[in-house]
Amino acid sequence: MTRTPDPADLTARLIRCPSVTPEEGGALQLLAAELGAAGFECHRVDRNGVPNLFARWGAKGAARTFGFNGHTDVVPPGDPASWTHPPFSGHRQDGWIWGRGATDMKSAVAAFAAAAIGFVTETPPAGAVILTITGDEEGPGKDGTRALLDWMRQQGERMDVCIVGEPSNPDRMGEMIKIGRRGSVTFGIEAQGLQGHAAYPHRARNPVHALLRLLHDLTASPLDAGSPHFDPSGLQVTTIDCGNPASNVIPEKARATVNIRFNDLHTGDSLDRMIRDRARAIAAETGVEFSIATDISGESFLTKPGPFVDLVAGVVRAETGIEPVLSTSGGTSDARFVKDHCPVLEFGLVGHFMHQVDERVPADQVRQLARIYRRILESYFS
Amino acid sequence: MTRTPDPADLTARLIRCPSVTPEEGGALQLLAAELGAAGFECHRVDRNGVPNLFARWGAKGAARTFGFNGHTDVVPPGDPASWTHPPFSGHRQDGWIWGRGATDMKSAVAAFAAAAIGFVTETPPAGAVILTITGDEEGPGKDGTRALLDWMRQQGERMDVCIVGEPSNPDRMGEMIKIGRRGSVTFGIEAQGLQGHAAYPHRARNPVHALLRLLHDLTASPLDAGSPHFDPSGLQVTTIDCGNPASNVIPEKARATVNIRFNDLHTGDSLDRMIRDRARAIAAETGVEFSIATDISGESFLTKPGPFVDLVAGVVRAETGIEPVLSTSGGTSDARFVKDHCPVLEFGLVGHFMHQVDERVPADQVRQLARIYRRILESYFS
Ligand SMILES: [Zn+2]
Ligand SMILES: [Zn+2]
Repeated sequence: MTRTPDPADLTARLIRCPSVTPEEGGALQLLAAELGAAGFECHRVDRNGVPNLFARWGAKGAARTFGFNGHTDVVPPGDPASWTHPPFSGHRQDGWIWGRGATDMKSAVAAFAAAAIGFVTETPPAGAVILTITGDEEGPGKDGTRALLDWMRQQGERMDVCIVGEPSNPDRMGEMIKIGRRGSVTFGIEAQGLQGHAAYPHRARNPVHALLRLLHDLTASPLDAGSPHFDPSGLQVTTIDCGNPASNVIPEKARATVNIRFNDLHTGDSLDRMIRDRARAIAAETGVEFSIATDISGESFLTKPGPFVDLVAGVVRAETGIEPVLSTSGGTSDARFVKDHCPVLEFGLVGHFMHQVDERVPADQVRQLARIYRRILESYFS
Repeated sequence: MTRTPDPADLTARLIRCPSVTPEEGGALQLLAAELGAAGFECHRVDRNGVPNLFARWGAKGAARTFGFNGHTDVVPPGDPASWTHPPFSGHRQDGWIWGRGATDMKSAVAAFAAAAIGFVTETPPAGAVILTITGDEEGPGKDGTRALLDWMRQQGERMDVCIVGEPSNPDRMGEMIKIGRRGSVTFGIEAQGLQGHAAYPHRARNPVHALLRLLHDLTASPLDAGSPHFDPSGLQVTTIDCGNPASNVIPEKARATVNIRFNDLHTGDSLDRMIRDRARAIAAETGVEFSIATDISGESFLTKPGPFVDLVAGVVRAETGIEPVLSTSGGTSDARFVKDHCPVLEFGLVGHFMHQVDERVPADQVRQLARIYRRILESYFS
């Protein structure tokens, strides 16, 4: 008979694996050992040096299959000397577990692994439970969850629904479930003019002025006022660079980077068209040429409120006594890949200390999260 | 009896002095020797390592004193291998004199030195002729013509009127006399915001956006429509820099440089107030703080049309057959310092090849300029 691991203990053991992206650090090996011992079929789905773990309990292609997704890689700890306890110590004191990944998100991986092990061994369901765990969510993310989902498609593996365990609660456990995310697109814009002397602007074409016009067009008014489940889209000019040291010289080139977090009123392509149209109009007037490189890191998506959302929200409410807000706020996560596979929600810990020095988590919060995941499984398969 | 030097020959000899700013290169020594031999009282007025030459024929404090101003320093020649003839060769071929400074402005210095020597030796006037020649017009210019004028004030030396010999004709000899210049002021603007994540702009203050608003305010409409003797003022944003490599991060700081060439409707101070007022308003709205460094390199000035302008224009017309335009166009010159001393005009060669590889000048043009200067002296003292 399998012993179900304590999620707090498993969190500390995972923290001790130094799995800074893209290092595996022993984290996926540890999970494969725990899950394998509990009857999960485990496959390493590494791609281009990025380690990934697929684990399934129950039959492939079962009528009902519940999925979890998470990551064991962590951002670098910075100077270890700045930490009260070493960043890979998993030090436990006064009810806290310390170390890089304590919040984001070895704890949630430990919680869903422990919950799944406990559930399938104590009350084996009529169906399957799949865990997809990547070693590259914090890095480029090209060969992480994407590789797992690509592999699953090839293998005929599928999940009916999935929960991503990213920290979803701003301050208190239970206050927020993410039912979607805004998309993100980045534009690298280069304006090419004609160099000249500042006293003779009619013989030059100032690319800074043309770029200013474009960026002013883009920032002068909001992109939208939000939509039923989404905040307004937001546009940030994150840098402008020209590098001209001579104050009496009109430069030849200027560059800017624009990042847009967009809701379901836009797509990466519609924003690309919008920016190119405006650039074309300014180019026609000024003679300054624009070249634009577009990088769509994720489209917006929404898992519409319905039975799956109600199920998860009901469990969260029952376990925490709080009515969770259904939100689409925040940055991007691997849910942007999972959403192409099946309906996906994000629910995890309180996001305090993420990516910071002295990252830590209350052990009780990890255990509460494991109870919530367990009850979600029970409810889903009942 | 003094032999009056040939201005073309003197130009070639000056070109052979390698006087890249701030090197004297023997150029002022050569001029002092020529002028001294013709009865000019010469003083070197060096300051902070910058070489300058003051030369006067006639009595100090004479009732009528005519002045010339020019420079013997030159900008670097770049790669000598790019030149058809070596940049300090003073090579003469097919009526051309080749080398750095052939246009800007050893030729005009040679022309006014030769004209002045010929005039005072052949037809000694009742008055004085002063030549102020600096070795730093192309550099910072803090210890060049300024030092000469400071020294003259201390010594009780004065000019009643002055011609600066900078190239003033865009294409043909005689087509343009500069009777003033626009002013020039440069603003270094730094915007300080609050760093944050591009997905959470409400927790940050984007300095790029605040800077964009300010620069858009400044560039959206012209500063003025010009004034009776001046073109419209012009504003150029010559650089914007932020240096933020992370497209998902709102940066803390952004910087821009703004150069304004302004006419007599503004002063450096009035423009400084205008920019600071706008920055203050945007700071109050956005919470982004601006710090602004102002560098006024010269106020605008105008030598109003009148007897002096008429005299010079009349000689130019008589010598070239062209009616000169009275202009205030172009960049700054040392006339911006001389104008605080006495009425000043600029008339010199055609400005082709200035600061370029293969700088050269027709020997006949230098001789024609010397004839014009000579007739101006004759007319002034008649
Ligand atoms: Zn994470
Ligand atoms: Zn010059």
